[in-house]
Amino acid sequence: MSRQSFPLSRVYGLLEPGPVVLLTTAHSGQRNVMTLSWHTMIEFEPPLVGLVLSNRDHSFGMLQASGECVINIPTVEIADKVAGCGNTSGADTDKFAMFGLTPELAAQVAAPLIGECYANLECRIHDTDMVNKYGLFVVRVVQAWIDPAVENPRTIHHLGYGNFMVAGERIKLDSKMK
Amino acid sequence: MSRQSFPLSRVYGLLEPGPVVLLTTAHSGQRNVMTLSWHTMIEFEPPLVGLVLSNRDHSFGMLQASGECVINIPTVEIADKVAGCGNTSGADTDKFAMFGLTPELAAQVAAPLIGECYANLECRIHDTDMVNKYGLFVVRVVQAWIDPAVENPRTIHHLGYGNFMVAGERIKLDSKMK
Repeated sequence: MSRQSFPLSRVYGLLEPGPVVLLTTAHSGQRNVMTLSWHTMIEFEPPLVGLVLSNRDHSFGMLQASGECVINIPTVEIADKVAGCGNTSGADTDKFAMFGLTPELAAQVAAPLIGECYANLECRIHDTDMVNKYGLFVVRVVQAWIDPAVENPRTIHHLGYGNFMVAGERIKLDSKMK
Repeated sequence: MSRQSFPLSRVYGLLEPGPVVLLTTAHSGQRNVMTLSWHTMIEFEPPLVGLVLSNRDHSFGMLQASGECVINIPTVEIADKVAGCGNTSGADTDKFAMFGLTPELAAQVAAPLIGECYANLECRIHDTDMVNKYGLFVVRVVQAWIDPAVENPRTIHHLGYGNFMVAGERIKLDSKMK
């Protein structure tokens, strides 16, 4: 894909609709990717995002140790890879190799961008106060990338037990909301 | 609608796809409703949800003072009302009257259920440690309701500036994920 820098002020519009994301991390020569749906915007700019991980996730320790991650947003075209990443553990699997995901160099963090995702958000840990209690990491997006060729990304949204909703039609309403 | 009790263990599947929700509160004889997209699941059961509000929202003080709320999930059929609730403030508007939303009695909290929403989650505040820093309330769902007649709810998902995505097709993938 031909990746372009994306304004940090508009990042919320990518995550607010609630897509499943692929979280990448890197630490001590290892890299990993996990499937994650438990996230929320916390602040517009600088964009702060809350990510909830389980301490049983292999990525939990890698995020904590490295202090960095990339939030990659996939679309339905790679839904099988997304489900595959959710079914396996980085403790014993190189998921990039297993599912044919292409790790690419990020600009500001060691964690890789996923080439097959239409948007990539490079993040640094901002606040770990809620990690012990809830596995909730507050991260700050420091660099955002998008494939401008993808106009209406068909993101996927998890309903539970392998059921997903695919992003449908777009509508415009009279709204003063940012 | 004919509302039925919904298992707390399955609540995450309603919020995880990231729909815009209508948050209702009640305090001192007043009630209010606000439009909100910044939420995440935090725990499966009991279901814990993170809600991010601005302290400029009229509902912020009402949630803080009452310790209770209802998360109501609307569908595209009432999208205009949802946008309307986002464009107005409960400080000077009775949004239920203005947008024709029907407040109904909840079972365990004072905040009303919205009759026009296909799902309603009665909540109590669980943790306020992150309220001052981020406006992040951790609430616990204590009672959930659903309209069983709505099979594939066409929830709406905010993209920014009045642009919304409507829930599209459902797919099933081979997944071990809960």
